[in-house]
Amino acid sequence: MSRLSTGRLYGVGTGPGDPELLTLKAVRAIGEADVLAYFAKAGRSGNGRAIVEGLLKPGMVELPLYYPVTVEIDKEHDDYKTQITAFYDASAAAVAEHLAAGRTVAVLSEGDPMFYGSYMHLHVRLSDRFPTEVIPGITAMSGCWSLSGLPIVQGDDVLSVLPGTMGEGEMSRRLADTQAAVIMKVGRNLPKIRRALSASGRLVEAIYVERGTMPESRAVRLSEKLDDSAPYFSLVLVPGWSGRS
Amino acid sequence: MSRLSTGRLYGVGTGPGDPELLTLKAVRAIGEADVLAYFAKAGRSGNGRAIVEGLLKPGMVELPLYYPVTVEIDKEHDDYKTQITAFYDASAAAVAEHLAAGRTVAVLSEGDPMFYGSYMHLHVRLSDRFPTEVIPGITAMSGCWSLSGLPIVQGDDVLSVLPGTMGEGEMSRRLADTQAAVIMKVGRNLPKIRRALSASGRLVEAIYVERGTMPESRAVRLSEKLDDSAPYFSLVLVPGWSGRS
Ligand SMILES: C[S@@+](CC[C@H](N)C(=O)[O-])C[C@H]1O[C@@H](n2cnc3c(N)ncnc32)[C@H](O)[C@@H]1O
Ligand SMILES: C[S@@+](CC[C@H](N)C(=O)[O-])C[C@H]1O[C@@H](n2cnc3c(N)ncnc32)[C@H](O)[C@@H]1O
Repeated sequence: MSRLSTGRLYGVGTGPGDPELLTLKAVRAIGEADVLAYFAKAGRSGNGRAIVEGLLKPGMVELPLYYPVTVEIDKEHDDYKTQITAFYDASAAAVAEHLAAGRTVAVLSEGDPMFYGSYMHLHVRLSDRFPTEVIPGITAMSGCWSLSGLPIVQGDDVLSVLPGTMGEGEMSRRLADTQAAVIMKVGRNLPKIRRALSASGRLVEAIYVERGTMPESRAVRLSEKLDDSAPYFSLVLVPGWSGRS
Repeated sequence: MSRLSTGRLYGVGTGPGDPELLTLKAVRAIGEADVLAYFAKAGRSGNGRAIVEGLLKPGMVELPLYYPVTVEIDKEHDDYKTQITAFYDASAAAVAEHLAAGRTVAVLSEGDPMFYGSYMHLHVRLSDRFPTEVIPGITAMSGCWSLSGLPIVQGDDVLSVLPGTMGEGEMSRRLADTQAAVIMKVGRNLPKIRRALSASGRLVEAIYVERGTMPESRAVRLSEKLDDSAPYFSLVLVPGWSGRS
């Protein structure tokens, strides 16, 4: 095979956890790829890779991109920003080496790549230089409202997607000013999220979903969840469509 | 085969247009279904059906659900509400008849079923009475920002999904108060959307996408689109992630 031309970069959305929620296009891209890249915590193989496990071919090169151990450093701290930028630069360089050598690289991204995904850091560094295609994935929120059988928005409803990291006052204000909401990045932010939902009068409607579409998936009314512990893979849904007919 | 038990209801997300964006689960559900139901305008076969065309089996029963001709009536008018409610009731009854006879019914929904989809009107009428599963789909917005290679949200960004039907003042206010936005239901609302983007200082960033992931798909900067005509299948993206690194 000719190695004179560069390889193709695929940003592949894996969906929220259930391997059956991969698209046909994602399956094809992984099948075409010479190299499978994915972000992971040091020592782990990553959730994205677990989702596509059944599709791995013998001889496929794996390129795990391990996050530096920066969890102890505050995100607003300059050291964090320097370290994480250097990490994305080095990751992009590692992917670029394969692409320049003519190898097609599929970079996995949980859910949808362009929706709060780490893949975007590679995309902005590489898509000008190499042929690139982004393959959308089922978002975590779609997976969660579907398994809950929860209509989220209809007609003229507004949907607000809020990161659980935002301040409590801003969160209450936004929750009071929208028909539907999704709160991402719950984890340790759950007590604050609960207070903001309560202050805005939306707690009674809120549904908490953890590990949506994964085998240990669980969905409950947040008002009936008695503890405030939440794993990384969790979010809160506040449905709109008050009319329902 | 025993017909003593009822059939299964699937709400199947077809994704935004490209048949390769169907999930493996959607393909399986359509393969299992005895009856394929879909909403369509009278005399048309519907976009959802076109997306799954290649999966239809000989002998599959088709149940097109034709919208009543209500376009001339104002949506806020009582006659519109009465007619459309009667239509959803009759549609649910037609689906229920198949389910009660033990036939599995797949109801197609463009994009994701629970996200502004007509399927929801059947879901609220039937899911208490029959075993029901909602299969999420790639939303139109995910399809559109992916094909545009446009990172939409990162980190602590807020995403606001706004229907193009809302008032101009409210739209401007919401656009000025969010990192990222998606404006759905563009069509005849485009001149108003343009004014609201301009008033909020967001026009320069806005990307207009029509028929995203379909063969005639087109994406341009809205500021470079010189006319104000837009088809039903169009939306506007305002990306967040101002940092981009
Ligand atoms: C960095 S964001 C990635 C979002 C992803 N790209 C998407 O399209 O949904 C990570 C957050 O997504 C949410 N999340 C991801 N997978 C999930 C799942 N299976 N169940 C519940 N929440 C999930 C959690 O809120 C988590 O903190
Ligand atoms: C009733 S909503 C259905 C949304 C769908 N359930 C989803 O998940 O995206 C219809 C609106 O979706 C948008 N839309 C649907 N398909 C599209 C496409 N292929 N390209 C651009 N916009 C699309 C348009 O704004 C249209 O007015």
